[in-house]
Amino acid sequence: MKYKKLADNIIEFIRNYYKENNLKGVVIGISGGKDSGVVAGLFVKALGAENVLGVWMPCHSKDEDKRNAKLVSEHFGFELKEFDLTNMYENYVKQIKDNYEVDDEVLVDANINVKPRMRTATLYYHAAMMSKIKKGGYIVAGTSNKCEIYVGYFTKGGDNVADIQVLADLTVEEVIGVGKAIGVPKVVVNKIPDDGLSGLSDEEKLGVKYDDIAKVINGEKVAQNVKEKIKKLHKNNAHKFKTPTFKKIA
Amino acid sequence: MKYKKLADNIIEFIRNYYKENNLKGVVIGISGGKDSGVVAGLFVKALGAENVLGVWMPCHSKDEDKRNAKLVSEHFGFELKEFDLTNMYENYVKQIKDNYEVDDEVLVDANINVKPRMRTATLYYHAAMMSKIKKGGYIVAGTSNKCEIYVGYFTKGGDNVADIQVLADLTVEEVIGVGKAIGVPKVVVNKIPDDGLSGLSDEEKLGVKYDDIAKVINGEKVAQNVKEKIKKLHKNNAHKFKTPTFKKIA
Repeated sequence: MKYKKLADNIIEFIRNYYKENNLKGVVIGISGGKDSGVVAGLFVKALGAENVLGVWMPCHSKDEDKRNAKLVSEHFGFELKEFDLTNMYENYVKQIKDNYEVDDEVLVDANINVKPRMRTATLYYHAAMMSKIKKGGYIVAGTSNKCEIYVGYFTKGGDNVADIQVLADLTVEEVIGVGKAIGVPKVVVNKIPDDGLSGLSDEEKLGVKYDDIAKVINGEKVAQNVKEKIKKLHKNNAHKFKTPTFKKIA
Repeated sequence: MKYKKLADNIIEFIRNYYKENNLKGVVIGISGGKDSGVVAGLFVKALGAENVLGVWMPCHSKDEDKRNAKLVSEHFGFELKEFDLTNMYENYVKQIKDNYEVDDEVLVDANINVKPRMRTATLYYHAAMMSKIKKGGYIVAGTSNKCEIYVGYFTKGGDNVADIQVLADLTVEEVIGVGKAIGVPKVVVNKIPDDGLSGLSDEEKLGVKYDDIAKVINGEKVAQNVKEKIKKLHKNNAHKFKTPTFKKIA
């Protein structure tokens, strides 16, 4: 009941924003994971499936993720387009290697983060194109949740860039609750979150558990060393939220 | 004298930020225009030319811009790498056209905005790579000025994404003043600003003059219709600064 109410509030928030700003549709990157599945379900309920475009953007992606992306689109009845980023990514890295004589090892971080940036550029490309085709404003929905945002677990200029955020104030537990309340397929809502890029689960990459992040956010009791680790992640990622800017002295 | 002092304050700001955060170098997209020329000059003075990497990222760009980019790098003595985005861009648009049967007309806005997003992704790619090669943190410097930012004249997820902003509180007049004070080549500092993409000057695209934007920012007198136009641009671009976000009711 609690999560049904929360889902209804989000749906109302979406509808109000679209009405106030005279918008038409939404573009959502569908990864096969729970966050994008829940966001897609909420927007279908708010705007109708005909105004939701999902984009599946594989780049050395797993078949399982593709199946889950399709499952979400079929379940909620919205269109899912595939835009394959593999060639673009491969050509990009090749051009870098041709320009600089560098080992793969030097490019590990660069390669992980360029993918979400290409995906965001692609979502905005689709939004601009759809706005022209449908003669009404399409915007890009973000899929980050509160726990990820708190520890800065996103790529700056990548998956944190969006025109509307509906999960950004929800912990992972709340995202799952809302997902179940609106009927996101179980295999998607129960999926262990990973970035589909590094081969590790998100919690393995972060070295902390989402439940513990939620506890720190909510001021609940957590083991001291875990709390310190989470606070440190939060602090170290502050630059992702507010760009240091020179100000004239008045 | 006033601008010499302002330049010194910015240089001090950069040095302090680098010291506090134990950073090493900077990556700057060099367009051949005044903003990136001034930013490059300030960072060379703050960090030394050996810690500044400029990247010239042509994409159907003008020879004149390339000459000016080179001129800035030679003048200040920092390394300038070329990363050509033309193929990537062409392949991207081709893939879109293959996937969707759309006319060029439908893609005009999408095509203009995808370029700055590819550039930003490329600057961050270089920063991650350089951090590994040089074994010290490289960050991306933004080049937007206060007037552009006020009217939202930038691409969300593109040129507004940076790790440090040094011109964001300076009007175009102040950027020119600082540029002259630090000796940016005259042909660059006096260049009429354009995006190098649309074939129009920035002021033609915007339909307002930078001087008038500065006056509105500073609360000085401007013709009523001009003021309204500028205020409207500012208001319509508010979504670029703060993403509308659903908040739980406490």
